[in-house]
Amino acid sequence: MRRILRALFRHSPCDTAMHSLGHQIIAEFYHCNSSHLNDVDYIRQIMVEASEQAGATIVTETFHHFSPHGVSGAVIIAESHLSIHTWPEYGYAAVDLFTCGDSVSSETAFNHLRDKLESGQVSTMEMHRGQVDMMQSNGRPVTHKPELKAV
Amino acid sequence: MRRILRALFRHSPCDTAMHSLGHQIIAEFYHCNSSHLNDVDYIRQIMVEASEQAGATIVTETFHHFSPHGVSGAVIIAESHLSIHTWPEYGYAAVDLFTCGDSVSSETAFNHLRDKLESGQVSTMEMHRGQVDMMQSNGRPVTHKPELKAV
Repeated sequence: MRRILRALFRHSPCDTAMHSLGHQIIAEFYHCNSSHLNDVDYIRQIMVEASEQAGATIVTETFHHFSPHGVSGAVIIAESHLSIHTWPEYGYAAVDLFTCGDSVSSETAFNHLRDKLESGQVSTMEMHRGQVDMMQSNGRPVTHKPELKAV
Repeated sequence: MRRILRALFRHSPCDTAMHSLGHQIIAEFYHCNSSHLNDVDYIRQIMVEASEQAGATIVTETFHHFSPHGVSGAVIIAESHLSIHTWPEYGYAAVDLFTCGDSVSSETAFNHLRDKLESGQVSTMEMHRGQVDMMQSNGRPVTHKPELKAV
């Protein structure tokens, strides 16, 4: 599994050679620690840690605990977002890591979440978002998400 | 295009016959109205409207305007989430519609956003999240996200 993941992340998070603006990892974490999946504070903490360790700039975050179980939440980062939905009763978490630019390491965020959720089985898909040849760029250079500044 | 979309949404939002917990529409909206894409209040409004019209229960939402341009945000719903990232300079928005259960119409949310962003070209992908045969269900029935209650 580790070897598969290394191969998956061999490319930079947002490969401008692919002529896209964003990069998304769709991760299915199975066989997780169910008590972690039902702990909203823990989920918030590891999502924030994943964002920080990946080198992302956190803009805002929101997390919610459902009754009787399950957590949903998202961290909005200057470079897009990280989201999570958990089903403790099935030991499963659905995670999306959407990043732009080459300053954020999706691999680091992914590894942190896999380890902290104690996931025993992982399935991933990655995709490029925003194909530049489909856009109205008017000859301007392709950039990632604009810099975060007070507005 | 309309015919393609009708075909895309012929199935229910979360087809339990597919043995999955969630359903995700990954939508690429090209050739949008750029001034809409740079208006955080407008983006928040149409995302909330999309959630409501789809029959979702809104838990919380967060949106941010970047300088000099661009908006990122998410609506956390009891049935998962809707997220958006916009690049006004390219007339492009990346939208994810992640839903669970069969009470929310992803098609309605999708159509509302396409119309309100005035997108001239759309690319979509849909996927099922959380394959039940990968889970530790212990023989329990498959359910969507638990009911939203005060906790």
